[in-house]
This record gives sequence, structure tokens and C-alpha cells, in this order.
Amino acid sequence: MLKNPSSKYRAFTPIKLKDRTWPDAVITKAPIWCSVDLRDGNQALIEPMDVDRKLRMFKTLVEIGFKEIEIGFPSASQVEFDFTRRLIDENLIPDDVTVQVLTQARDHLIHRTFEALQGVPKAIVHLYNATAPVMRKVVLGMSEDEIVQLATKNAQLFKELAAKQPETQWTFQYSPEMYSDTELEFSKRVVDAVTAVWQPTPENKCIINLPTTVEHSTPNIFADMIEWSHRHLERRDSIVLSVHPHNDRGTGTATAELALMAGADRLEGCLFGNGERTGNLDIVNVALNMYIQGVDPELDFSNIDEIKRTVEHCNQLPVHPRHPYVGELVFTSFSGSHQDAIKKAFNARQEGEIWDMPYLPIDPKDLGRSYEAVIRVNSQSGKGGISYLLESEYKVALPRKLQIEFSQVVQKAMDAEGAEMSAKDIWAIFQQEYHLDEAAPAYQLGGDGATTTIEATIRKGTAGAAVQGQGSGPIEAFIDAMTKATGKSVQVLDYAEHAIGGGAGAQAMAYVEVDVDGARVWGVGQNPNIVTASIKAILSGIERAGVDLAQLTIVQEPAATA
Amino acid sequence: MLKNPSSKYRAFTPIKLKDRTWPDAVITKAPIWCSVDLRDGNQALIEPMDVDRKLRMFKTLVEIGFKEIEIGFPSASQVEFDFTRRLIDENLIPDDVTVQVLTQARDHLIHRTFEALQGVPKAIVHLYNATAPVMRKVVLGMSEDEIVQLATKNAQLFKELAAKQPETQWTFQYSPEMYSDTELEFSKRVVDAVTAVWQPTPENKCIINLPTTVEHSTPNIFADMIEWSHRHLERRDSIVLSVHPHNDRGTGTATAELALMAGADRLEGCLFGNGERTGNLDIVNVALNMYIQGVDPELDFSNIDEIKRTVEHCNQLPVHPRHPYVGELVFTSFSGSHQDAIKKAFNARQEGEIWDMPYLPIDPKDLGRSYEAVIRVNSQSGKGGISYLLESEYKVALPRKLQIEFSQVVQKAMDAEGAEMSAKDIWAIFQQEYHLDEAAPAYQLGGDGATTTIEATIRKGTAGAAVQGQGSGPIEAFIDAMTKATGKSVQVLDYAEHAIGGGAGAQAMAYVEVDVDGARVWGVGQNPNIVTASIKAILSGIERAGVDLAQLTIVQEPAATA
Repeated sequence: MLKNPSSKYRAFTPIKLKDRTWPDAVITKAPIWCSVDLRDGNQALIEPMDVDRKLRMFKTLVEIGFKEIEIGFPSASQVEFDFTRRLIDENLIPDDVTVQVLTQARDHLIHRTFEALQGVPKAIVHLYNATAPVMRKVVLGMSEDEIVQLATKNAQLFKELAAKQPETQWTFQYSPEMYSDTELEFSKRVVDAVTAVWQPTPENKCIINLPTTVEHSTPNIFADMIEWSHRHLERRDSIVLSVHPHNDRGTGTATAELALMAGADRLEGCLFGNGERTGNLDIVNVALNMYIQGVDPELDFSNIDEIKRTVEHCNQLPVHPRHPYVGELVFTSFSGSHQDAIKKAFNARQEGEIWDMPYLPIDPKDLGRSYEAVIRVNSQSGKGGISYLLESEYKVALPRKLQIEFSQVVQKAMDAEGAEMSAKDIWAIFQQEYHLDEAAPAYQLGGDGATTTIEATIRKGTAGAAVQGQGSGPIEAFIDAMTKATGKSVQVLDYAEHAIGGGAGAQAMAYVEVDVDGARVWGVGQNPNIVTASIKAILSGIERAGVDLAQLTIVQEPAATA
Repeated sequence: MLKNPSSKYRAFTPIKLKDRTWPDAVITKAPIWCSVDLRDGNQALIEPMDVDRKLRMFKTLVEIGFKEIEIGFPSASQVEFDFTRRLIDENLIPDDVTVQVLTQARDHLIHRTFEALQGVPKAIVHLYNATAPVMRKVVLGMSEDEIVQLATKNAQLFKELAAKQPETQWTFQYSPEMYSDTELEFSKRVVDAVTAVWQPTPENKCIINLPTTVEHSTPNIFADMIEWSHRHLERRDSIVLSVHPHNDRGTGTATAELALMAGADRLEGCLFGNGERTGNLDIVNVALNMYIQGVDPELDFSNIDEIKRTVEHCNQLPVHPRHPYVGELVFTSFSGSHQDAIKKAFNARQEGEIWDMPYLPIDPKDLGRSYEAVIRVNSQSGKGGISYLLESEYKVALPRKLQIEFSQVVQKAMDAEGAEMSAKDIWAIFQQEYHLDEAAPAYQLGGDGATTTIEATIRKGTAGAAVQGQGSGPIEAFIDAMTKATGKSVQVLDYAEHAIGGGAGAQAMAYVEVDVDGARVWGVGQNPNIVTASIKAILSGIERAGVDLAQLTIVQEPAATA
């Protein structure tokens, strides 16, 4: 419903490759990765990195495992030139890493680029010129022939300058800029002309890099284009076929994956998708997509939060809370039904099993993240999340029916307040609702093997009442005592108990569902002694059922407090 | 290089639909859109929306043009129930908008859901239950038969409860939750069983919604799945086929697009991709992807910044600066070569032409955004960006060679400071570098038609010198005077002039490239009078070439200042 899109914008012409094979392909191994954080990413920053930040980024890229790193555009500014020199002069490039630099197809820039690289053991030198019609016609004012001449003339200059620095092991790379917007036949013509100059061999390949400089089409069309180029380029066996996707249409990740299926060998991109406009391909995303398919990406993101902090420091741009794999909220579940499922599946999962967890495509621990943030509770959450938090943070495992009862208590508090609640908030509500902080009554057990008797003193405020009862065990005896003391029908409907911790400091948690004249409620008690915990739980339930413990019938004068 | 991905994770099994047709399909019309911001999006927020925020979001969704809006899960909490009632009781739902509500397949929740909808003119009621193996086995403990029974029993309840509220026009919707992870044959079995109960007709369709509850595969595999379901589901002519993509693999947008190509009629998603974990499908992204292909998305984002502000207010989450179409930086170019191309293409473009701008897939003005932020200058920028800013903000059009000279001046300042520079910063450097604030010299022209003479007083600090010269015009005459006064060879190599503004307040800008004893530099002068502007430009150039204007040879005692 915007103004006249159909007259202002033009549909991208699909390739409709009839014999395409990529839709049946599956990615089974990692591509060659090339980070362009220090060039393409850096040039898109409000405040480009200073040398300290560049060094920190370079170190991080090496640690992650990148073997090809584009470090800059040394002919473009003194900072870029100096950074290149610093890496070389201070021997900061590991033996198994090849640095890459970019240059436009212009004589003086290429000379300056090779000057910047003097003494480097190995390097990729990356030449580009625009090939798309809009660039030929509007920006450069050059014919197709002139574009081919521009590319081959400068490809020739590469050869000449490289020959003057024979101590370096050179790899040449060429990008027809805006490949995604260039006629396929013409892109082939330019690329073939460049490789005809360079004469790469299967042992000494050159890199041909095909960028979606701007995303213009659905990713399947780009995959058709890549499969076409993969099949039609000359000297294919002597070429590393690279792609360099951007993300203007929000489909950079899919474009990269489909391009790999269509024949690409190599991907250029940035950590978390930094880069001009909507960014470059997010290499972390593509690598971890492989990882969860059982394919080793050959990059290490086992400490993803630290990598994120470094990248945010260097780029001075945030990573979004919903960014795949790394965002603060991507392993978080607020929804009740999701929480229920995650809780059950966590309980059912055995170490060493295939990862098949509802709502969690990857184990957060594989990225160095914890389970703590997985389940968070707000008004959209249900019993699953609430009881998960109590269990994981306070080791309190509520019976299912108590979960339902308590979740309604929390829901009401949440409806009133609106905000997220932490485990601590929920624990405070739990303690208050079930009177966990009240003192245990003094009591004494007696009787023989068949019958247990109890005498207890129930204090509430300034009031105190001595009660007594008997039964087959302490709970039945105390229920008997409370039936007499309240004058009501008191029954136990359900009962559960578990320990928290072990050894001398262990605590028992008792959960008792009571029926007091037809009102069914749960009571909870906590104490190192399991009998005391149960008695507290019964009192908690009776009080929650509406009985005023200050108004009990005194069955016998209270003894002194124990 | 993380630990054992291949033993812990399992590859998704591809469908390999042999006779797929979707790779040749092209999206030519808008799907039915359904916003789930108020339900799926809301439940993923750290702080879910209060009623004010919900109302504001609802109003925004209506203004954008959504005709189907999922407003909540009324049986899940009192806030959701009350919000549903408020929309109905206060007649806040426009006639052409249908609200949708979600419910789990549970008896009491369904009763409560229909209760919440009493009196609504029309509504979509959306039933879901999980169908994937992990949910059947681990979470629900139900067989395939039991899952089918669960779905059909509750589908039947829908019919019964709807029949009791005949004043409402009902549409039923069913989602096999985790469709993306369910065996295709089984998802068909459940869906066919539900539609067998509902008995939809081509005139009174039901909606079958197939979610990628969690993204598990490349989008082409999901497209194969959708094409399979599209072809195999019973009663297809009586079904609106809907998809509900998430974004765990960062490919939600591609998944949605390929699903439309594969036969889907309808998309569920959120503005800017909000939602649990990595978010739901970003409807804005998919809609604007259509827009730039000349397809009317039937949604209005012509004021996208205001929509962004509203969404950020309601969700209390930011939109990332690189988010497609809406992020602060997505129409920004920092790179010199990109800026050059954009500047040239802007100049060449005629109003009404097809949009074909390098690096700008959409006209920012179509989204209510301005060109101001398109070109921003930092140390990665070149002459293009610098001169674009001066031209757009100060109407100063530098000759190309002067652009190169001045960009080196700015580059040096930038290399030293690192940060982005605004148009104002650059203008300040320009004024200082070219002495634009110095007073114009007093001068007098004379001579006949063939020869012009000039007498001028050049003041610098406390010094003053009277100079005189002659030539075929005022510039030649003044060059002659300065040659004599400096004792150097002074020549004009290039010259350009243009007006800024019009009428009485118009200013002339003069640009002169001078050669002073072999030193070639540019000078710039600004004055309402074109001759004065030129004289100032010559003086500016001579001074920049290293001549001290306080040490001129006095050719004649200075006259009083004009």
C-alpha cells in the first residue's frame, strides 16, 4: 500500500536453471571461511576501529580458527596501511593464517597495495571492479569491452608486481563487484578474461569471489546463478569459488547455504553479520547451522559470549538480544507450554544422547552458555517455568498439583505487576504464601510400635495452644490432634517429601495436600527433621485453608516451649 | 571445532521432492498476513505489554493494514482475557479486521476461550497441539492415535461451542505444532482428521497453519515439505494454507518466501521479527522484499520510523541498527567507492524512472526516511562522501580535482581522530583550510574593452600592500598583480564558479587551481560578487601554496580601505 511500487521497482529476472541440482544437495563439510571483519566490517562502522581494536579483532579471529583473514584496504588510508605493516613487521600473523587485502582496479592503488605487503610470507591480493549495468552506464561510463580491459590490465599488473616480490607466496583473488546484479554471461566473460591472464592451476588456484553486493532476489535465484557459474566458468578446476553475501533482503544466511549447495567452495563474511548497511553474511550463524546438523564447522565458538563482548567492543555496535545463537534471549523461554516441554525433556535426557530438545536447537553449553537463562518467568509463563526456577535455583521440587496451585498465586502477582520475575522473587512469594518462615511448634512423640502419640504446642502471635492426638504414625497423630483442636474435619489427601542438600546441613521439604472441611489446599514445611517439616506443612495447609491458629481449642495447658 | 558435533547432533532428513516446482515459482501477489505480535510476540517479552501498550500495538497493526490479528491466548491469564473483552466490549475492532485467539487442545481452556469471545462479530479460533516425535514421546507420552484423538476431540468441541454462539462468524484454525519436526505423513493424518471434523468448504474455509516452531533445516527443505503438504492434504480447496516461521537458523525470511512459492497462502509473523528466542518471521522484511520487486504488499510502511518507535515502546526491546529496511544504518554508506557511486547515480536519476541505485535497494523516501543519513563520513570514506555532504548540506559543489585535494585534508584529520564526521565538521575544516572567513580585499577595476586593470589592497594581519596589474579580464589582471607582488610565477590552471541560492542573497563560490612556482593547489572564495569571489579564491590558493601575504612587495602605497 505504498505508492506505486510496481511502476517504480522492477522484479529481478529469475534464472530458471532447468537442470539445477542444488535443491537435492546437502552441506556435509565446512567451506573455506574468510573473515572480512577488518575490512568490509570495519568500513561500515560509525567509528572505525583504531589499531588496538584491530589487533584485538585479529587475535580473536585467529583464535576462532580463521585461516584466511582480510585485514584491510591498505591503499585507502594511512591507518589501513600502517596496520598491514604492523602485522607483518611484528610477525603477528601465525604460520597457518593467510592475510588478504583488497584493492580497486587502479594502477596507483595496486602499487601501494603491493608496497604494503612487502615481506609478508603469504598473502591473498583481492582485485575488484564493478561489472553491473548500472555501474557501467551511470557510474563509470564504460562499455563492456572497457570493463574487461580494466580488469585484465590490472590483473596483468598483479602478476608483474607479484613477480617483483618472489619471496611471498601469492594468491590472487578477483571479484566482479555486483555480480548479483550483472548479466551472467558478462560476468563469465570478465572472470574468464582475468583467469586467462593469471593462468591458475589446480595446484596454484586463484579465488573467484561472486558477491551479492546488494541482495536483489530470493536465495534460490542466487543459487541458480552460482550453479550456472560453477558449471560455466573456464578453468573451474583451478578456481576456488567464493561467495560474499550481503543481507539487504534479510536472506544472507540462506543465500550462503544455498550457494554452497550450488557449488561454492568458500564464504566471506563477518562475525554476527557486521558490515555496510544490513551487514555481511553472519559466519557464526552459518557455521553453527552446520554444527547442529552434525557437520564440524572447523571454527570454534565454544565461548561465544566472550567473542560477542570482543566484537561489541571493537565494532561499538550491539548484538541484538534475538540474534541467532548469540543473542541474550535466544535460549530463553517465557511461554508456559514451552517451559513445560523443556523441563520434561531436560529430565528425560541422558548424557551422550543425540540432542533432541524441544525449542532448543543447540545445547547452550556447547557455546559456553549456561542453562540459567533458559527459563524465565513472566505473566506469559505457567507452572513449568515457575517450578523449573524453584527447582534449579532452590532445589525445591514441587508436586505437580502444588505446581498448579502455586502458579496461580504467582500469576496473580504477575498480572498485577506485569514485569518478569526472577527465581528470587518467586521464592519470596513461595515463602510468604506457605508461611515457610514460621517457627516450628514444640512437640513430643510417644507411643508403642502400633500407635504414635503426639503432644504439641501451637503458637500464633501471642496465643498458644497445647494439642494432642494419636495415630499410626506422627502425621496421622498430628492430624488427629488438629482435628480436635480446630473442631473441623482435617484429612491428608497427598503427601511428598524430599531432601535439599546432604550431610549435616540437609533440609527436608514436606508438601502436604489437606482437606479442611472440604477446602483443598497445599501446605509446605521445611526443617532438618522430616517429622517437623511434615508438621509444619500440615499447619501451613490448615492455615491456608482459613483456620486461625490463634483461635485453637486448648486441649491441655501448653508446656514450656522446647 | 566444538566437541563432537557429529555424535551429538543429527542432520535433518531432506525430503528430496523429486518433482518440486517451487524453484521456478515467483511471488507475484501479497499473501494473507496475520500479525501475531500480541500473542506470540508478547509472550516472548521480558516485560509483557500492559493493556495500554497492547491497545497501542493493536492500533498500529490496524493502521499498517493487517486484516487478521492474533490478539492473545485469553484462557492463559486474566490480562489476556480482559484485553480480549475490552476490544469487543468497547467496539475497538474495525469491521474489516478479524481477531484471532489461540488455545491449547484442552477442554477447559477451549471453554474459557469461547467465553472470552462472546459477542465478537467474527473471529478466528486457533487450536494447536504438538505432533512431533519428541513431543509425543518425551513430553506428552502419547501415541500417534492418541494425538489424532486429542486433535479431533477438541476440533469437535470447537464446532459445538461455536454453534452455541451463532451470532459470530467463526473461522477455525488448526496448527500441528512442530510441523517442521513432524513426519510429513503423520502431519497429514492429523490435519486431514481435523478437517474431516470441521468439513470446511471453498466458501467457508478453515486455516491450516504449518509452523517451523523451531527451524531445523535449510529453507529449501521446508519448501519441499510445504509443496508436499500443499499437494497431499485433503480438502485443499477448502483450506487457507498458512505458515508460521521462526528464525532459529537465521533463515526465517527465506523460509517464508520459499513456502509462498511452494503453495502457502498466508503468513503469520511479527513486526521486525519479534518473538520467542530468535523471533518470529519478520513480516515487514518479507513485505518490503515484495515491494522492491514491484509487488504491492498491501501493508503500509510509509512511515517506518514511527512504526519502529511504537514497536520499541511496546516490546521494550530495540530494533538493531542493521535490521533490514528499518535499522538506523541500513541506508548509510561510509565507504568511499560506494559513496561515489551513490552520488553519481543520484545526480543521474530522473524522477519517475525505475529505481536502480547502486547500494540502495529501496528509495528511503518510500519508507518516510530521508537521504540525510545515506552518506556519512568516517576514515573509510573518500572524496565522494565528503563532497556529497558539502553539496547536500551547504550547496557547495567542488570540482573533481578539488574533491581529491580536500579529501586528503579530511582524511588526515580523520586518521588522527578516528570518529565519524558530520557535514558541519567537514564544513568547518573546509572553511579553515581555504581561508573562507578572511575579508575580501578592496579593489578597483578599470580599463577598456580589450584590457582590464586592477588596483587592490591586500591586508594580512597588520600589514597591507597595494598591488596592481592588467590582463584580458579581472582574473588575468589580478594574477598579473600577484605575480608582481609575490615575485613568483603565478598561473591559473583551472577555474569553476557557481551560485548558492538565488535573488538578493545569492552567493558566488569560486574555485581556482593555481600554480605558484610549480606548487599546484586549489583556492576557494565566497562572495555575493563573482569577481570578488574569484579574487578571494586566487588569494586563498596563493596563501595555501606557502606565500606569506604579509610580506608582499608594495607596488604602490595602499589607498584607504573601500
